[in-house]
Amino acid sequence: VMGIVLNIREFFEKAWTLAVNEPKKVVHCLKVGLALSLVSVFYYMRPLYDGFGGNAMWAVMTVVVVFEYTVGSTLYKCVNRAIGTCLAGSLGLGVHWVASQSGDRVEPFILQASVFLLAAAATFSRFIPTIKARFDYGAMIFILTFSLVSVSGYRVDKLVELAHERVSTIAIGASICILITVILSPVWAGTELHHLISTNLEKLADSLEGYAAENFRVDGSTNVHQKDSSMKLQGYKCVLNSKAAEESMANFARWEPAHGKFNFRHPWKQYLKIGASMRSCAYCIETLHGGLNSNTETPEFLKKPLNDVCMRLSTSSSKVLKELSSMIKTMKNSTKLDILVDEMNSSVEGLQNTLKTFPSCQHIPTPDPATEEAPGGTEEASLKPTALSLMEIVQMATLTSLLVEIASR
Amino acid sequence: VMGIVLNIREFFEKAWTLAVNEPKKVVHCLKVGLALSLVSVFYYMRPLYDGFGGNAMWAVMTVVVVFEYTVGSTLYKCVNRAIGTCLAGSLGLGVHWVASQSGDRVEPFILQASVFLLAAAATFSRFIPTIKARFDYGAMIFILTFSLVSVSGYRVDKLVELAHERVSTIAIGASICILITVILSPVWAGTELHHLISTNLEKLADSLEGYAAENFRVDGSTNVHQKDSSMKLQGYKCVLNSKAAEESMANFARWEPAHGKFNFRHPWKQYLKIGASMRSCAYCIETLHGGLNSNTETPEFLKKPLNDVCMRLSTSSSKVLKELSSMIKTMKNSTKLDILVDEMNSSVEGLQNTLKTFPSCQHIPTPDPATEEAPGGTEEASLKPTALSLMEIVQMATLTSLLVEIASR
Repeated sequence: VMGIVLNIREFFEKAWTLAVNEPKKVVHCLKVGLALSLVSVFYYMRPLYDGFGGNAMWAVMTVVVVFEYTVGSTLYKCVNRAIGTCLAGSLGLGVHWVASQSGDRVEPFILQASVFLLAAAATFSRFIPTIKARFDYGAMIFILTFSLVSVSGYRVDKLVELAHERVSTIAIGASICILITVILSPVWAGTELHHLISTNLEKLADSLEGYAAENFRVDGSTNVHQKDSSMKLQGYKCVLNSKAAEESMANFARWEPAHGKFNFRHPWKQYLKIGASMRSCAYCIETLHGGLNSNTETPEFLKKPLNDVCMRLSTSSSKVLKELSSMIKTMKNSTKLDILVDEMNSSVEGLQNTLKTFPSCQHIPTPDPATEEAPGGTEEASLKPTALSLMEIVQMATLTSLLVEIASR
Repeated sequence: VMGIVLNIREFFEKAWTLAVNEPKKVVHCLKVGLALSLVSVFYYMRPLYDGFGGNAMWAVMTVVVVFEYTVGSTLYKCVNRAIGTCLAGSLGLGVHWVASQSGDRVEPFILQASVFLLAAAATFSRFIPTIKARFDYGAMIFILTFSLVSVSGYRVDKLVELAHERVSTIAIGASICILITVILSPVWAGTELHHLISTNLEKLADSLEGYAAENFRVDGSTNVHQKDSSMKLQGYKCVLNSKAAEESMANFARWEPAHGKFNFRHPWKQYLKIGASMRSCAYCIETLHGGLNSNTETPEFLKKPLNDVCMRLSTSSSKVLKELSSMIKTMKNSTKLDILVDEMNSSVEGLQNTLKTFPSCQHIPTPDPATEEAPGGTEEASLKPTALSLMEIVQMATLTSLLVEIASR
């Protein structure tokens, strides 16, 4: 019994920390409650809607189903629901008319066949990627409305009148949803995406810095910021798995009207490209991190000349990343970036030069097997940043060109 | 006009190739059509359900909303719908009874307040990760049913009777869905997950092999299998972004009963662990791939001694991956694996030994700047497989222990 009580307590504690960390989500919950109350008030006020299972139910259902966390996804669902309902409703009426013209005995077969065919076709369309991205929900609503119309149409003749009432209740529900999401502390999918991208860039910079601090530190000054730096090091892991979130947000952002600094046709797809190049940076850091764990010990005298260059390289590239992040945040082209990129390039060259001199200085110390083994370890640690930074430069180039595009809008 | 026609034609061609490549999805569409037709036949046959907006509609709605691609997700939705409806229905009746006892003036306020509070609470619960994974849909249905009951309950007194009818129609719809998904060529989420994991392992092995062939090939025999190998090389990219798919499948697989080789409580979470270690392998390959693109040219005489060892290492590790894949496929522990792992370990040692002898043999040729620069390039190519393979060995260890666990069930 105690175990269950503890479990429940733990659960509530988790929920509480979630609520404290993300007050936006709590606000969203209150908004849902408010929208539902409004719809039901509307229902109480209007005596013309009466009876259980009446059409008021559709307004409630619309609110529950359509109300989502971001403005973009709510709009997406509203538009899809509207299109799906209208299309399926008119098609259903048409099929119903054809069926009723063709006699009592054939009628159910025509209706059955049309339900079967259209449901199968609409379900298939949901598997096609382009439709899935934009009209997945609409296709579902299409199937639902069409089969409801054709099934119920068999009994009732006043379909058009009913359709009119139903569409109006759905419109009421949808407009309440849209008003509440847009007016009361709106959560824009576009802003969230923008924020996610710039935060992720910063996290990348932090973990690159943390990695450098961990790997190239002078062994005297250890364990001071141990926890802090390992926290920072883990930052890149968020970037690794952010693809799905980015894509869905970019998808919803397309439905949003102009808000804040963003226009209606803001190039959201560019964010996906930045996200992709950030992910390949994160892959590099992941590999570096793996190398850190299987650390081969390197003798001091070999480590020192490389340490400086590597440190300079990683700090300069993390500076570039930070500058990019703040550029995205403010949406301004910064002239500082060029200087930082130049600095990074020069430190890459510095590293390459050090490596060039490396094999020749190798033979200055006594060439016993132990030192001969060493370059493996040291160069492993040093060459990877080179490869990493070379890749980053390529990515910088694409990133900056993208940013110029975005900033120019 | 021609452009639009071409676009439409292209769209249909895409749809056609999708249908040809994945016949399972076409079968799914036909199943949806069949389920809907069955529900409407049921509706035609029973004259006791009559009138538009009657309860038969709930059966249709249940089928449309609940019918999903895999058995697991259909079951998940059915169970969630049942639990959500029952819980919300009984709660709604209770609140309604309390409200009706407290006089006409207070009644609407009590109902309003309860709708607001419960809707907000249920919406919040959908943000909590553990509930989101298992009961997201149930929470939505809970909100829907509760607000419908309390809103409509204001007008109608025969709620219990109606609730009974509604539950029975939902049960009919749900059971039709379950029967059709389970009996007619079922798509088990568990089997799909199993298949995905073993295919991904094979793809990893292929791209490792392809990478080796690309990077360490003797320059005489180029461009023969160029296209084929670059196709294989891209294989690892599927692994990079498979996390979301794996997680949702493992989530749905938990709801499935015993089928084929899998028991009810098959350790699906282990598959996620295998997936995670596969992903970190894929990150390594991604980094290797990046190194391939920024290929620094290496002089022949330095390349040759390393080529053999690297080739041996990558073929042996891709053999291990393939063996693992076939082990997962057949779900049998293979004794061959131990031999292959030993082989891989020995080739890792071989590479390390070659590297040890490397700095000393460096000074045999004339030490002009060009050759001194070379080790950078070659060792970059060679040391990374070392790091890669070292990481892989660690992963092999976890993988094998996982597989032993799975195979023992």
